[in-house]
Amino acid sequence: MVKPKNTAQLAKALALYKQLAKTIRHDFKANAVSGALRGIAEASLDFLTTAARKPLISQIAGKSYFAFEIGDRFTRPINESLFSGKETLIHSFFDAVQNNTLGNLPAEEITKACYSVAMSFCALSDLLSKGDQKTPGTFFEYLIGHLFAKQIGLNPREEVEVLSLDRPQTLPTDFIFDLGIDKPKIHLPTKLSTRERVIQVWAHQRVLDGVYGTGRFLGILVCLTETKMDRNTLQVIEICLPGQWRVYQMFIAQMTRIYYLDVPKIYADLNSVFPKIHVAPFGDFFTECETLLG
Amino acid sequence: MVKPKNTAQLAKALALYKQLAKTIRHDFKANAVSGALRGIAEASLDFLTTAARKPLISQIAGKSYFAFEIGDRFTRPINESLFSGKETLIHSFFDAVQNNTLGNLPAEEITKACYSVAMSFCALSDLLSKGDQKTPGTFFEYLIGHLFAKQIGLNPREEVEVLSLDRPQTLPTDFIFDLGIDKPKIHLPTKLSTRERVIQVWAHQRVLDGVYGTGRFLGILVCLTETKMDRNTLQVIEICLPGQWRVYQMFIAQMTRIYYLDVPKIYADLNSVFPKIHVAPFGDFFTECETLLG
Repeated sequence: MVKPKNTAQLAKALALYKQLAKTIRHDFKANAVSGALRGIAEASLDFLTTAARKPLISQIAGKSYFAFEIGDRFTRPINESLFSGKETLIHSFFDAVQNNTLGNLPAEEITKACYSVAMSFCALSDLLSKGDQKTPGTFFEYLIGHLFAKQIGLNPREEVEVLSLDRPQTLPTDFIFDLGIDKPKIHLPTKLSTRERVIQVWAHQRVLDGVYGTGRFLGILVCLTETKMDRNTLQVIEICLPGQWRVYQMFIAQMTRIYYLDVPKIYADLNSVFPKIHVAPFGDFFTECETLLG
Repeated sequence: MVKPKNTAQLAKALALYKQLAKTIRHDFKANAVSGALRGIAEASLDFLTTAARKPLISQIAGKSYFAFEIGDRFTRPINESLFSGKETLIHSFFDAVQNNTLGNLPAEEITKACYSVAMSFCALSDLLSKGDQKTPGTFFEYLIGHLFAKQIGLNPREEVEVLSLDRPQTLPTDFIFDLGIDKPKIHLPTKLSTRERVIQVWAHQRVLDGVYGTGRFLGILVCLTETKMDRNTLQVIEICLPGQWRVYQMFIAQMTRIYYLDVPKIYADLNSVFPKIHVAPFGDFFTECETLLG
Protein backbone atom coordinates (compact mmCIF):
# COMPACT_ATOMS: atom_id res chain seq x y z
CA MET A 1 0.00 0.00 0.00
CA VAL A 2 2.65 2.53 1.03
CA LYS A 3 5.61 2.72 -1.39
CA PRO A 4 9.20 2.37 -0.08
CA LYS A 5 10.08 6.04 -0.52
CA ASN A 6 6.97 6.98 1.40
CA THR A 7 7.84 4.68 4.28
CA ALA A 8 11.17 6.46 4.76
CA GLN A 9 9.50 9.89 4.71
CA LEU A 10 6.87 8.68 7.14
CA ALA A 11 9.48 7.39 9.58
CA LYS A 12 11.40 10.66 9.23
CA ALA A 13 8.33 12.80 9.96
CA LEU A 14 7.40 10.74 13.02
CA ALA A 15 10.97 10.69 14.39
CA LEU A 16 11.20 14.46 14.00
CA TYR A 17 7.83 14.89 15.71
CA LYS A 18 9.08 12.92 18.72
CA GLN A 19 12.22 15.07 18.79
CA LEU A 20 10.12 18.25 18.51
CA ALA A 21 7.92 17.18 21.45
CA LYS A 22 11.07 16.89 23.59
CA THR A 23 12.92 20.07 22.54
CA ILE A 24 10.00 22.50 22.44
CA ARG A 25 9.30 22.23 26.20
CA HIS A 26 12.76 23.69 26.91
CA ASP A 27 12.55 26.61 24.50
CA PHE A 28 9.56 27.32 22.27
CA LYS A 29 11.53 29.88 20.24
CA ALA A 30 14.64 27.74 19.61
CA ASN A 31 15.95 27.44 16.06
CA ALA A 32 15.97 23.67 16.62
CA VAL A 33 12.17 23.90 16.87
CA SER A 34 11.92 25.72 13.51
CA GLY A 35 14.24 23.08 12.08
CA ALA A 36 12.12 20.20 13.36
CA LEU A 37 8.88 21.81 12.12
CA ARG A 38 10.45 22.40 8.69
CA GLY A 39 11.72 18.80 8.56
CA ILE A 40 8.29 17.42 9.53
CA ALA A 41 6.58 19.57 6.88
CA GLU A 42 9.04 18.54 4.15
CA ALA A 43 8.82 14.83 5.01
CA SER A 44 5.00 14.98 5.26
CA LEU A 45 4.63 16.83 1.94
CA ASP A 46 7.05 14.38 0.36
CA PHE A 47 5.08 11.45 1.79
CA LEU A 48 1.91 12.88 0.28
CA THR A 49 3.29 13.41 -3.27
CA THR A 50 2.56 9.81 -4.25
CA ALA A 51 -0.89 9.75 -2.60
CA ALA A 52 -3.86 10.19 -4.93
CA ARG A 53 -6.05 13.29 -4.67
CA LYS A 54 -9.69 12.36 -4.11
CA PRO A 55 -12.07 15.17 -5.12
CA LEU A 56 -14.71 16.02 -2.50
CA ILE A 57 -18.10 17.66 -2.88
CA SER A 58 -17.80 21.10 -1.33
CA GLN A 59 -21.03 22.60 0.03
CA ILE A 60 -19.11 25.74 0.97
CA ALA A 61 -19.48 28.63 -1.50
CA GLY A 62 -16.19 29.63 -3.12
CA LYS A 63 -14.07 26.83 -1.63
CA SER A 64 -12.92 23.53 -3.16
CA TYR A 65 -11.69 20.58 -1.10
CA PHE A 66 -9.91 17.31 -1.80
CA ALA A 67 -8.56 14.47 0.34
CA PHE A 68 -5.31 12.55 0.02
CA GLU A 69 -5.98 8.85 -0.48
CA ILE A 70 -3.81 5.76 -0.05
CA GLY A 71 -5.53 2.38 -0.43
CA ASP A 72 -8.84 2.53 1.47
CA ARG A 73 -7.81 5.39 3.71
CA PHE A 74 -8.32 9.06 3.05
CA THR A 75 -7.62 12.24 4.94
CA ARG A 76 -9.71 15.09 6.29
CA PRO A 77 -10.76 17.71 3.68
CA ILE A 78 -8.00 19.97 2.40
CA ASN A 79 -8.65 23.42 0.90
CA GLU A 80 -7.31 23.38 -2.68
CA SER A 81 -6.41 27.05 -2.89
CA LEU A 82 -4.70 27.14 0.52
CA PHE A 83 -2.72 23.91 0.32
CA SER A 84 0.62 24.19 -1.42
CA GLY A 85 2.98 21.30 -1.89
CA LYS A 86 5.56 23.77 -3.28
CA GLU A 87 8.91 23.53 -1.54
CA THR A 88 9.74 27.17 -2.35
CA LEU A 89 6.80 28.45 -0.30
CA ILE A 90 7.72 26.28 2.69
CA HIS A 91 11.40 27.27 2.38
CA SER A 92 10.82 31.00 2.20
CA PHE A 93 8.37 30.70 5.10
CA PHE A 94 10.75 28.85 7.42
CA ASP A 95 13.68 31.08 6.35
CA ALA A 96 11.59 34.07 7.43
CA VAL A 97 10.66 32.35 10.70
CA GLN A 98 14.31 31.69 11.54
CA ASN A 99 15.40 35.22 10.54
CA ASN A 100 12.46 36.82 12.36
CA THR A 101 11.32 38.50 9.14
CA LEU A 102 7.81 37.02 8.84
CA GLY A 103 6.42 40.57 8.90
CA ASN A 104 8.02 41.17 5.48
CA LEU A 105 6.14 38.30 3.81
CA PRO A 106 2.68 38.91 2.32
CA ALA A 107 0.05 37.85 4.90
CA GLU A 108 -1.60 35.47 2.39
CA GLU A 109 1.71 33.68 1.88
CA ILE A 110 2.10 33.12 5.63
CA THR A 111 -1.46 31.80 5.89
CA LYS A 112 -0.91 29.43 2.95
CA ALA A 113 2.43 28.18 4.22
CA CYS A 114 1.07 27.56 7.75
CA TYR A 115 -2.02 25.86 6.37
CA SER A 116 0.16 23.59 4.24
CA VAL A 117 2.50 22.76 7.14
CA ALA A 118 -0.35 22.02 9.57
CA MET A 119 -2.49 20.18 7.05
CA SER A 120 0.32 18.00 5.65
CA PHE A 121 1.02 16.59 9.12
CA CYS A 122 -2.72 16.17 9.83
CA ALA A 123 -3.06 14.32 6.50
CA LEU A 124 -0.14 12.03 7.30
CA SER A 125 -1.68 11.32 10.69
CA ASP A 126 -5.09 10.60 9.13
CA LEU A 127 -3.55 8.07 6.74
CA LEU A 128 -1.77 6.36 9.62
CA SER A 129 -4.52 6.02 12.20
CA LYS A 130 -8.21 6.71 12.24
CA GLY A 131 -9.55 9.03 14.86
CA ASP A 132 -6.25 10.18 16.44
CA GLN A 133 -6.98 13.85 17.11
CA LYS A 134 -4.45 14.32 19.89
CA THR A 135 -1.23 14.20 17.82
CA PRO A 136 -2.42 16.63 15.09
CA GLY A 137 -3.82 18.92 17.80
CA THR A 138 -0.54 18.94 19.71
CA PHE A 139 1.43 19.52 16.50
CA PHE A 140 -0.78 22.50 15.69
CA GLU A 141 -0.25 23.86 19.21
CA TYR A 142 3.53 23.53 18.78
CA LEU A 143 3.45 25.24 15.36
CA ILE A 144 1.40 28.24 16.49
CA GLY A 145 3.16 28.43 19.87
CA HIS A 146 6.54 28.49 18.11
CA LEU A 147 5.49 31.21 15.63
CA PHE A 148 4.22 33.45 18.45
CA ALA A 149 7.30 32.75 20.62
CA LYS A 150 9.63 33.65 17.72
CA GLN A 151 7.65 36.75 16.80
CA ILE A 152 7.50 38.07 20.36
CA GLY A 153 10.87 36.73 21.47
CA LEU A 154 9.43 35.11 24.61
CA ASN A 155 8.53 31.66 25.86
CA PRO A 156 4.91 30.97 26.84
CA ARG A 157 3.70 29.75 30.22
CA GLU A 158 0.81 27.35 30.63
CA GLU A 159 -0.51 28.38 34.04
CA VAL A 160 -1.18 31.61 35.89
CA GLU A 161 -1.34 32.45 39.57
CA VAL A 162 -4.71 33.46 40.93
CA LEU A 163 -4.78 35.86 43.88
CA SER A 164 -6.92 34.20 46.50
CA LEU A 165 -5.74 35.82 49.77
CA ASP A 166 -5.98 32.61 51.82
CA ARG A 167 -3.94 30.08 49.88
CA PRO A 168 -1.78 30.02 46.76
CA GLN A 169 -3.72 28.89 43.69
CA THR A 170 -2.71 28.41 40.05
CA LEU A 171 -4.93 27.83 37.05
CA PRO A 172 -3.78 25.72 34.09
CA THR A 173 -4.33 27.70 30.88
CA ASP A 174 -3.53 27.70 27.20
CA PHE A 175 -0.39 29.61 26.19
CA ILE A 176 0.22 32.84 28.12
CA PHE A 177 2.86 35.32 26.87
CA ASP A 178 3.95 37.95 29.36
CA LEU A 179 5.37 40.92 27.44
CA GLY A 180 6.40 42.73 30.59
CA ILE A 181 5.45 45.87 32.51
CA ASP A 182 2.97 48.22 30.79
CA LYS A 183 2.57 45.90 27.84
CA PRO A 184 -0.49 43.73 27.16
CA LYS A 185 -0.19 40.03 27.91
CA ILE A 186 -1.42 37.40 25.47
CA HIS A 187 -3.85 34.55 26.17
CA LEU A 188 -3.42 32.21 23.19
CA PRO A 189 -5.61 29.11 22.85
CA THR A 190 -5.15 27.00 19.69
CA LYS A 191 -7.72 24.59 18.24
CA LEU A 192 -7.93 22.44 15.11
CA SER A 193 -11.65 23.28 15.13
CA THR A 194 -13.97 24.70 17.76
CA ARG A 195 -17.61 23.44 17.78
CA GLU A 196 -19.33 23.50 21.19
CA ARG A 197 -16.13 23.32 23.25
CA VAL A 198 -15.19 26.88 22.24
CA ILE A 199 -17.11 28.32 25.22
CA GLN A 200 -14.04 27.28 27.28
CA VAL A 201 -11.96 29.89 25.44
CA TRP A 202 -14.27 32.73 26.47
CA ALA A 203 -14.60 31.30 29.99
CA HIS A 204 -10.82 31.24 30.48
CA GLN A 205 -10.63 34.80 29.16
CA ARG A 206 -13.29 35.73 31.73
CA VAL A 207 -11.19 34.24 34.54
CA LEU A 208 -8.11 36.19 33.39
CA ASP A 209 -10.18 39.41 33.14
CA GLY A 210 -11.56 38.78 36.63
CA VAL A 211 -8.21 38.00 38.22
CA TYR A 212 -6.03 40.60 36.48
CA GLY A 213 -8.48 43.23 35.29
CA THR A 214 -10.32 43.55 31.99
CA GLY A 215 -8.01 44.28 29.07
CA ARG A 216 -4.81 43.08 30.76
CA PHE A 217 -4.78 39.91 28.63
CA LEU A 218 -5.49 40.04 24.92
CA GLY A 219 -7.40 36.90 24.00
CA ILE A 220 -6.18 35.54 20.66
CA LEU A 221 -7.67 32.27 19.44
CA VAL A 222 -5.97 30.49 16.51
CA CYS A 223 -7.92 27.77 14.66
CA LEU A 224 -7.17 25.60 11.65
CA THR A 225 -10.60 25.13 10.06
CA GLU A 226 -14.29 24.34 10.74
CA THR A 227 -14.82 21.81 7.95
CA LYS A 228 -16.67 18.56 8.48
CA MET A 229 -16.84 15.78 5.92
CA ASP A 230 -19.44 13.05 5.56
CA ARG A 231 -17.20 10.07 4.80
CA ASN A 232 -19.97 8.30 2.87
CA THR A 233 -21.27 11.09 0.64
CA LEU A 234 -17.88 12.96 0.56
CA GLN A 235 -19.74 16.22 1.15
CA VAL A 236 -17.81 18.94 2.97
CA ILE A 237 -19.57 21.53 5.12
CA GLU A 238 -18.46 24.08 7.71
CA ILE A 239 -19.93 23.88 11.21
CA CYS A 240 -20.29 27.40 12.58
CA LEU A 241 -22.24 28.77 15.55
CA PRO A 242 -22.05 32.55 15.00
CA GLY A 243 -25.08 33.30 17.20
CA GLN A 244 -23.46 31.55 20.15
CA TRP A 245 -20.15 33.34 19.57
CA ARG A 246 -21.97 36.67 19.69
CA VAL A 247 -23.60 35.74 23.00
CA TYR A 248 -20.23 34.66 24.46
CA GLN A 249 -18.56 37.89 23.25
CA MET A 250 -21.35 40.00 24.79
CA PHE A 251 -21.84 38.14 28.06
CA ILE A 252 -18.71 36.17 28.99
CA ALA A 253 -15.62 38.07 27.83
CA GLN A 254 -14.12 39.85 24.83
CA MET A 255 -11.71 38.00 22.56
CA THR A 256 -9.42 40.43 20.72
CA ARG A 257 -8.73 38.33 17.63
CA ILE A 258 -9.80 35.01 16.21
CA TYR A 259 -7.42 33.87 13.50
CA TYR A 260 -8.11 31.01 11.12
CA LEU A 261 -5.89 29.31 8.59
CA ASP A 262 -9.04 28.47 6.57
CA VAL A 263 -11.46 31.29 7.52
CA PRO A 264 -15.17 30.35 7.47
CA LYS A 265 -17.08 33.16 5.73
CA ILE A 266 -19.85 32.98 8.36
CA TYR A 267 -17.32 33.89 11.04
CA ALA A 268 -15.60 36.52 8.87
CA ASP A 269 -19.04 38.19 8.65
CA LEU A 270 -18.91 38.74 12.43
CA ASN A 271 -16.51 41.64 11.69
CA SER A 272 -19.50 43.71 10.61
CA VAL A 273 -22.24 42.96 13.15
CA PHE A 274 -22.63 43.77 16.85
CA PRO A 275 -20.73 42.71 18.90
CA LYS A 276 -17.88 42.98 16.41
CA ILE A 277 -15.71 39.88 16.63
CA HIS A 278 -12.47 40.42 14.76
CA VAL A 279 -11.98 37.25 12.70
CA ALA A 280 -9.05 37.23 10.26
CA PRO A 281 -6.66 34.97 8.32
CA PHE A 282 -3.75 33.94 10.53
CA GLY A 283 -1.12 35.64 8.35
CA ASP A 284 -2.61 39.03 9.31
CA PHE A 285 -1.18 38.65 12.81
CA PHE A 286 2.35 39.24 11.56
CA THR A 287 1.46 42.47 9.79
CA GLU A 288 -0.71 43.86 12.61
CA CYS A 289 1.37 42.45 15.47
CA GLU A 290 3.09 45.74 16.39
CA THR A 291 -0.14 47.74 16.42
CA LEU A 292 -1.91 45.03 18.38
CA LEU A 293 0.75 44.62 21.06
CA GLY A 294 1.61 48.31 21.19
CA MET B 1 -22.14 -15.67 27.56
CA VAL B 2 -25.48 -14.03 28.42
CA LYS B 3 -28.06 -16.44 29.87
CA PRO B 4 -31.60 -16.66 28.33
CA LYS B 5 -33.34 -14.85 31.20
CA ASN B 6 -30.81 -12.06 30.91
CA THR B 7 -31.39 -11.65 27.20
CA ALA B 8 -35.09 -11.04 27.77
CA GLN B 9 -34.39 -8.45 30.49
CA LEU B 10 -31.81 -6.79 28.27
CA ALA B 11 -34.26 -6.53 25.37
CA LYS B 12 -36.91 -5.19 27.74
CA ALA B 13 -34.62 -2.49 29.17
CA LEU B 14 -33.55 -1.34 25.69
CA ALA B 15 -37.10 -1.33 24.31
CA LEU B 16 -38.25 0.74 27.31
CA TYR B 17 -35.33 3.13 26.83
CA LYS B 18 -36.36 3.74 23.21
CA GLN B 19 -39.95 4.33 24.35
CA LEU B 20 -38.73 6.70 27.08
CA ALA B 21 -36.68 8.73 24.60
CA LYS B 22 -39.85 9.27 22.55
CA THR B 23 -42.33 10.06 25.35
CA ILE B 24 -40.18 12.31 27.49
CA ARG B 25 -39.87 15.03 24.85
CA HIS B 26 -43.64 15.58 25.02
CA ASP B 27 -43.92 15.76 28.80
CA PHE B 28 -40.98 15.35 31.18
CA LYS B 29 -43.31 15.02 34.17
CA ALA B 30 -45.65 12.38 32.69
CA ASN B 31 -46.42 9.26 34.75
CA ALA B 32 -45.52 7.28 31.63
CA VAL B 33 -41.97 8.59 32.08
CA SER B 34 -41.81 7.38 35.70
CA GLY B 35 -43.18 4.05 34.50
CA ALA B 36 -40.57 3.68 31.78
CA LEU B 37 -37.74 4.67 34.18
CA ARG B 38 -39.00 2.14 36.74
CA GLY B 39 -39.27 -0.58 34.09
CA ILE B 40 -35.73 0.12 32.81
CA ALA B 41 -34.36 0.03 36.38
CA GLU B 42 -36.12 -3.24 37.17
CA ALA B 43 -35.05 -4.92 33.95
CA SER B 44 -31.46 -3.66 34.32
CA LEU B 45 -31.20 -4.80 37.96
CA ASP B 46 -32.70 -8.14 36.99
CA PHE B 47 -30.24 -8.45 34.11
CA LEU B 48 -27.38 -7.81 36.55
CA THR B 49 -28.44 -10.41 39.17
CA THR B 50 -26.70 -13.22 37.31
CA ALA B 51 -23.55 -11.17 36.55
CA ALA B 52 -20.54 -11.80 38.78
CA ARG B 53 -19.31 -9.06 41.11
CA LYS B 54 -15.64 -8.31 40.48
CA PRO B 55 -13.96 -6.62 43.48
CA LEU B 56 -11.97 -3.50 42.63
CA ILE B 57 -9.09 -1.83 44.48
CA SER B 58 -10.46 1.41 45.87
CA GLN B 59 -7.90 4.17 46.40
CA ILE B 60 -10.66 6.36 47.83
CA ALA B 61 -10.77 6.52 51.62
CA GLY B 62 -13.98 5.10 53.08
CA LYS B 63 -15.47 3.85 49.82
CA SER B 64 -15.52 0.35 48.31
CA TYR B 65 -16.19 -0.36 44.64
CA PHE B 66 -16.97 -3.42 42.54
CA ALA B 67 -17.75 -4.02 38.87
CA PHE B 68 -20.34 -6.33 37.32
CA GLU B 69 -18.70 -8.87 35.04
CA ILE B 70 -20.02 -11.09 32.27
CA GLY B 71 -17.45 -13.06 30.27
CA ASP B 72 -14.53 -10.75 29.47
CA ARG B 73 -16.53 -7.56 29.91
CA PHE B 74 -16.90 -5.58 33.08
CA THR B 75 -18.62 -2.36 34.02
CA ARG B 76 -17.52 0.98 35.42
CA PRO B 77 -16.88 1.03 39.20
CA ILE B 78 -19.98 0.83 41.39
CA ASN B 79 -20.06 2.10 44.99
CA GLU B 80 -20.94 -0.86 47.23
CA SER B 81 -22.73 1.10 49.94
CA LEU B 82 -24.78 3.19 47.49
CA PHE B 83 -25.82 0.46 45.06
CA SER B 84 -28.87 -1.49 46.05
CA GLY B 85 -30.35 -4.30 44.02
CA LYS B 86 -33.30 -4.41 46.43
CA GLU B 87 -36.65 -4.17 44.71
CA THR B 88 -38.28 -2.65 47.80
CA LEU B 89 -36.04 0.43 47.64
CA ILE B 90 -36.72 0.97 43.95
CA HIS B 91 -40.45 0.43 44.44
CA SER B 92 -40.84 2.83 47.34
CA PHE B 93 -38.75 5.39 45.44
CA PHE B 94 -40.83 5.26 42.25
CA ASP B 95 -44.07 5.15 44.24
CA ALA B 96 -42.98 8.38 45.93
CA VAL B 97 -42.01 9.89 42.55
CA GLN B 98 -45.45 9.12 41.09
CA ASN B 99 -47.28 10.37 44.20
CA ASN B 100 -45.10 13.48 44.46
CA THR B 101 -44.07 12.52 48.00
CA LEU B 102 -40.30 12.27 47.54
CA GLY B 103 -39.88 14.95 50.23
CA ASN B 104 -41.17 12.42 52.80
CA LEU B 105 -38.44 9.86 52.07
CA PRO B 106 -35.11 10.07 53.92
CA ALA B 107 -32.61 11.95 51.71
CA GLU B 108 -30.12 9.04 51.88
CA GLU B 109 -32.77 6.66 50.56
CA ILE B 110 -33.44 8.92 47.56
CA THR B 111 -29.71 9.20 46.83
CA LYS B 112 -29.27 5.41 47.04
CA ALA B 113 -32.31 4.68 44.89
CA CYS B 114 -31.25 7.20 42.22
CA TYR B 115 -27.69 5.91 42.27
CA SER B 116 -28.95 2.35 41.81
CA VAL B 117 -31.31 3.31 38.98
CA ALA B 118 -28.65 5.35 37.12
CA MET B 119 -25.84 2.89 37.75
CA SER B 120 -27.81 -0.22 36.79
CA PHE B 121 -28.50 1.21 33.33
CA CYS B 122 -24.88 2.41 32.98
CA ALA B 123 -23.69 -1.09 33.94
CA LEU B 124 -25.99 -2.72 31.41
CA SER B 125 -24.72 -0.31 28.77
CA ASP B 126 -21.08 -1.03 29.70
CA LEU B 127 -21.63 -4.77 29.30
CA LEU B 128 -23.23 -4.23 25.91
CA SER B 129 -20.80 -1.87 24.22
CA LYS B 130 -17.44 -0.45 25.12
CA GLY B 131 -17.06 3.26 25.17
CA ASP B 132 -20.69 4.29 24.55
CA GLN B 133 -21.02 7.31 26.83
CA LYS B 134 -23.89 8.97 25.01
CA THR B 135 -26.72 6.56 25.94
CA PRO B 136 -25.90 6.44 29.71
CA GLY B 137 -25.45 10.23 29.69
CA THR B 138 -28.82 10.78 28.02
CA PHE B 139 -30.51 8.30 30.39
CA PHE B 140 -29.06 10.21 33.36
CA GLU B 141 -30.33 13.49 31.89
CA TYR B 142 -33.82 11.98 31.50
CA LEU B 143 -33.80 10.61 35.06
CA ILE B 144 -32.74 13.88 36.71
CA GLY B 145 -34.87 15.99 34.36
CA HIS B 146 -37.93 13.88 35.21
CA LEU B 147 -37.35 14.09 38.98
CA PHE B 148 -37.04 17.88 38.83
CA ALA B 149 -40.04 18.21 36.50
CA LYS B 150 -42.18 16.07 38.84
CA GLN B 151 -41.00 17.90 41.95
CA ILE B 152 -41.60 21.36 40.50
CA GLY B 153 -44.59 20.43 38.38
CA LEU B 154 -43.17 22.05 35.25
CA ASN B 155 -41.54 21.00 32.01
CA PRO B 156 -38.02 22.21 31.27
CA ARG B 157 -36.93 24.19 28.25
CA GLU B 158 -33.57 23.72 26.54
CA GLU B 159 -32.96 27.19 25.12
CA VAL B 160 -33.37 30.77 26.27
CA GLU B 161 -33.87 34.01 24.40
CA VAL B 162 -31.06 36.52 24.61
CA LEU B 163 -31.94 40.20 24.36
CA SER B 164 -29.77 41.60 21.60
CA LEU B 165 -31.70 44.70 20.43
CA ASP B 166 -30.85 44.22 16.75
CA ARG B 167 -31.95 40.68 15.99
CA PRO B 168 -33.64 37.77 17.81
CA GLN B 169 -31.15 35.36 19.31
CA THR B 170 -31.55 32.14 21.29
CA LEU B 171 -28.92 30.16 23.18
CA PRO B 172 -29.13 26.37 23.53
CA THR B 173 -28.75 25.45 27.20
CA ASP B 174 -29.10 22.58 29.62
CA PHE B 175 -32.50 22.25 31.33
CA ILE B 176 -34.16 25.54 32.30
CA PHE B 177 -37.19 25.53 34.63
CA ASP B 178 -39.20 28.74 34.73
CA LEU B 179 -41.14 28.87 38.02
CA GLY B 180 -42.94 32.06 37.08
CA ILE B 181 -43.06 35.70 38.15
CA ASP B 182 -41.09 36.59 41.31
CA LYS B 183 -39.75 33.06 41.69
CA PRO B 184 -36.18 32.01 40.92
CA LYS B 185 -35.59 30.09 37.70
CA ILE B 186 -33.45 26.95 37.59
CA HIS B 187 -30.46 26.27 35.32
CA LEU B 188 -29.93 22.51 35.61
CA PRO B 189 -26.98 20.88 33.84
CA THR B 190 -26.51 17.12 34.40
CA LYS B 191 -23.24 15.20 33.95
CA LEU B 192 -22.13 11.60 34.52
CA SER B 193 -18.78 13.13 35.55
CA THR B 194 -17.22 16.54 35.05
CA ARG B 195 -13.42 16.70 34.55
CA GLU B 196 -12.18 19.66 32.48
CA ARG B 197 -15.43 20.20 30.59
CA VAL B 198 -17.15 21.49 33.73
CA ILE B 199 -16.04 25.07 32.99
CA GLN B 200 -18.94 25.09 30.47
CA VAL B 201 -21.40 24.89 33.36
CA TRP B 202 -20.04 28.05 35.01
CA ALA B 203 -19.76 29.78 31.60
CA HIS B 204 -23.43 29.09 30.79
CA GLN B 205 -24.38 30.37 34.26
CA ARG B 206 -22.37 33.53 33.49
CA VAL B 207 -24.32 34.07 30.27
CA LEU B 208 -27.64 33.67 32.11
CA ASP B 209 -26.46 36.08 34.84
CA GLY B 210 -25.37 38.58 32.18
CA VAL B 211 -28.56 38.36 30.15
CA TYR B 212 -31.14 38.18 32.96
CA GLY B 213 -29.34 39.65 35.97
CA THR B 214 -27.28 37.93 38.63
CA GLY B 215 -29.35 35.66 40.89
CA ARG B 216 -32.29 35.31 38.51
CA PHE B 217 -31.25 31.74 37.64
CA LEU B 218 -30.16 29.31 40.35
CA GLY B 219 -27.41 27.14 38.91
CA ILE B 220 -27.85 23.54 40.06
CA LEU B 221 -25.43 20.95 38.69
CA VAL B 222 -26.26 17.25 39.18
CA CYS B 223 -23.47 14.68 38.71
CA LEU B 224 -23.29 10.92 39.08
CA THR B 225 -19.69 10.36 40.23
CA GLU B 226 -16.02 11.30 39.62
CA THR B 227 -14.54 7.79 39.74
CA LYS B 228 -11.98 6.60 37.24
CA MET B 229 -10.81 3.01 36.97
CA ASP B 230 -7.58 1.68 35.55
CA ARG B 231 -8.84 -1.35 33.64
CA ASN B 232 -5.51 -3.15 34.00
CA THR B 233 -4.74 -2.66 37.69
CA LEU B 234 -8.45 -2.42 38.69
CA GLN B 235 -7.60 0.59 40.87
CA VAL B 236 -10.36 3.14 41.39
CA ILE B 237 -9.60 6.80 42.02
CA GLU B 238 -11.63 10.02 41.97
CA ILE B 239 -10.56 12.81 39.62
CA CYS B 240 -11.28 16.15 41.27
CA LEU B 241 -10.12 19.67 40.47
CA PRO B 242 -11.22 21.63 43.56
CA GLY B 243 -8.76 24.51 42.97
CA GLN B 244 -10.18 25.09 39.50
CA TRP B 245 -13.77 24.95 40.80
CA ARG B 246 -12.89 27.64 43.36
CA VAL B 247 -11.49 29.87 40.60
CA TYR B 248 -14.60 29.37 38.45
CA GLN B 249 -16.88 30.11 41.42
CA MET B 250 -14.94 33.30 42.21
CA PHE B 251 -14.37 34.62 38.71
CA ILE B 252 -16.96 33.21 36.29
CA ALA B 253 -20.29 32.79 38.11
CA GLN B 254 -21.84 31.36 41.26
CA MET B 255 -23.41 27.91 41.20
CA THR B 256 -26.04 27.53 43.93
CA ARG B 257 -25.80 23.78 44.43
CA ILE B 258 -23.74 20.91 43.12
CA TYR B 259 -25.41 17.60 43.85
CA TYR B 260 -23.73 14.22 43.49
CA LEU B 261 -25.13 10.73 43.71
CA ASP B 262 -21.66 9.55 44.84
CA VAL B 263 -20.19 12.66 46.51
CA PRO B 264 -16.36 13.00 46.28
CA LYS B 265 -15.07 14.01 49.72
CA ILE B 266 -12.67 16.53 48.13
CA TYR B 267 -15.65 18.39 46.66
CA ALA B 268 -17.72 18.06 49.86
CA ASP B 269 -14.84 19.86 51.61
CA LEU B 270 -15.54 22.91 49.41
CA ASN B 271 -18.49 23.60 51.75
CA SER B 272 -16.05 24.91 54.34
CA VAL B 273 -13.51 27.00 52.36
CA PHE B 274 -13.79 30.30 50.48
CA PRO B 275 -15.59 30.61 48.13
CA LYS B 276 -18.10 28.23 49.68
CA ILE B 277 -19.38 25.85 47.04
CA HIS B 278 -22.41 24.00 48.32
CA VAL B 279 -21.81 20.35 47.37
CA ALA B 280 -24.34 17.81 48.68
CA PRO B 281 -25.81 14.34 48.07
CA PHE B 282 -28.60 14.53 45.49
CA GLY B 283 -31.31 13.34 47.91
CA ASP B 284 -30.88 16.59 49.88
CA PHE B 285 -32.54 18.51 47.06
CA PHE B 286 -35.93 17.08 47.92
CA THR B 287 -35.73 18.09 51.58
CA GLU B 288 -34.35 21.59 50.92
CA CYS B 289 -36.30 22.21 47.72
CA GLU B 290 -38.89 24.53 49.26
CA THR B 291 -36.33 26.66 51.08
CA LEU B 292 -34.15 26.81 47.97
CA LEU B 293 -36.90 27.80 45.54
CA GLY B 294 -38.71 30.01 48.09
